[in-house]
Amino acid sequence: MAKHFADRMLEAIEAKQAPLCIGLDPMYERMPRQIREIAAKSRGALGEQAAAAKEFCESVIEIVADQVPCVKIQSACFERCGPTGARAYLEVVEAAHEKGLVVIGDVKRGDIGSTAEAYATAHLEEAFLSEGEDERPVAVDAVTVNPYFGADSVQPFIEVAKQGGQGVFVVVRTTNPSAHDFQDFVDAEGRRVFERVAEKVNDWANQAGCVGDSGYSLVAAVVAATYPADTKLLRDLMPNSLLLVPGVGAQGGTLADAALAFHEDGWGGLVTVSRSVIYAWERPEYQHLGEVNWEDAIEVAMMDTKAALAEALARRATAT
Amino acid sequence: MAKHFADRMLEAIEAKQAPLCIGLDPMYERMPRQIREIAAKSRGALGEQAAAAKEFCESVIEIVADQVPCVKIQSACFERCGPTGARAYLEVVEAAHEKGLVVIGDVKRGDIGSTAEAYATAHLEEAFLSEGEDERPVAVDAVTVNPYFGADSVQPFIEVAKQGGQGVFVVVRTTNPSAHDFQDFVDAEGRRVFERVAEKVNDWANQAGCVGDSGYSLVAAVVAATYPADTKLLRDLMPNSLLLVPGVGAQGGTLADAALAFHEDGWGGLVTVSRSVIYAWERPEYQHLGEVNWEDAIEVAMMDTKAALAEALARRATAT
Repeated sequence: MAKHFADRMLEAIEAKQAPLCIGLDPMYERMPRQIREIAAKSRGALGEQAAAAKEFCESVIEIVADQVPCVKIQSACFERCGPTGARAYLEVVEAAHEKGLVVIGDVKRGDIGSTAEAYATAHLEEAFLSEGEDERPVAVDAVTVNPYFGADSVQPFIEVAKQGGQGVFVVVRTTNPSAHDFQDFVDAEGRRVFERVAEKVNDWANQAGCVGDSGYSLVAAVVAATYPADTKLLRDLMPNSLLLVPGVGAQGGTLADAALAFHEDGWGGLVTVSRSVIYAWERPEYQHLGEVNWEDAIEVAMMDTKAALAEALARRATAT
Repeated sequence: MAKHFADRMLEAIEAKQAPLCIGLDPMYERMPRQIREIAAKSRGALGEQAAAAKEFCESVIEIVADQVPCVKIQSACFERCGPTGARAYLEVVEAAHEKGLVVIGDVKRGDIGSTAEAYATAHLEEAFLSEGEDERPVAVDAVTVNPYFGADSVQPFIEVAKQGGQGVFVVVRTTNPSAHDFQDFVDAEGRRVFERVAEKVNDWANQAGCVGDSGYSLVAAVVAATYPADTKLLRDLMPNSLLLVPGVGAQGGTLADAALAFHEDGWGGLVTVSRSVIYAWERPEYQHLGEVNWEDAIEVAMMDTKAALAEALARRATAT
């Protein structure tokens, strides 16, 4: 029996002293020239993009692995590279595991029950990078899922995750400007759709066999940092769920906002930063390092973020 | 400039005299033994499943191509087969195009704006089955998308589709038992979330450059046949959108229910049937044909469905 996802996640956070996840969103146009030059030897435009995505993500993994517990891999960026991209995605998962990182596959899948079963199998069960005697089975540690179809679209992921000691992050509240279009739809009592989603996540999280020794469930949630008042509310609505918190930086949330996703004991949150770290040399404060020193820029930005997050959490602990 | 999606779709419906789409959901366990035996020569368990999915879907395409305008390919079933599955998906799209079918990629993607751009590129722009001089570019004619993230998650798909003469089917109302969990959330005026989604779809559908000569938009919707009263309402809320209607058969909807998704002139709907046709030999009424005659069972079930749909639409025209 594989160890419980939340227990593993919390141990990893403790070991690295940082509830911080680095999002790997490899966009070909934004990658350093050095990476694109290596990839240029690959066959075809999509093959080139897939090779660059793999090379870039593996470099980022090398840089961050000793300092953070977790990476989140953006499936869209790999799907964009065609069939070669699907393989590159698995190779990046394998590379992250070799460095001891917990890996979240950011796939945001959702469909009716029987199709959700196929998606759960696709994205949580092992795939193979090679077959036969030297087979290399690969599977992420958790995935993100979209709740619009309701319980029977999420449960198949929970069932597969339960078997594999994996996790399921249900998207509750998103960071984008249009999030309010449907997520903020209000009922007669003033309750919004995303609160209803959070209540359901809490039900799913507390099903038999879902809560680990740590008290946290394998059923987790994605909660935007961009609406601080809601973040606090959502922390209360899903006490046993880890909250993955995007939206810090480019999307307008602060680390102080993100700190509201944590319990007062400093646990239960996992802040995820992507572009502000992996393309750090584009930012005014790191531009002096230059694109040629992109690896240094990533390292400095990651360390700065880690320190600032620790400070935001400490400040919150003092305030409460 | 590529021809407008809705105009193409309507021409295809007219040519085949059937607003009927066949859903290709290849599930390894349910495929005929003959298919699984052919696939058994492939390398590895996932390679075998991918080969079977390709072989089975291409067989179904051969059987239905002269009679229906459109197929919908379930991405989950191909993703389940790992990287080999991503290639098989494209090969099936290519096979359907060679037979003159319109192809909907059922991918149900959704994410924040910049990630949605990557997904839109991934699933609507051309991928390549081989590179260089003999390159074989492949792209579906339309995709399905999930609305939970709001407008900025859908717009990138619309922009790419506009360029390519393609379509975007926004999931509005789903067929599964849990659909009511969030889609039926009610506001103070009694309006439900899915109605709000439909209103937004109608706004998106009527943007500049989205409506074709036929009066229909490239922005379409997925509307379950399982709630007849809602189907009629949704038809009225999205007058310029094609409605793709799943849920007939195993999921409890009837063709008379599905007929409510059409305008009174008999246009605007596209009924999609998957498992009741492609696994027809499992059904009591076709079991006498036996698994060995699976191709005949598929053909008979498809022709029966086509005739029954024509009848349901004629009956509705008489009733109104």
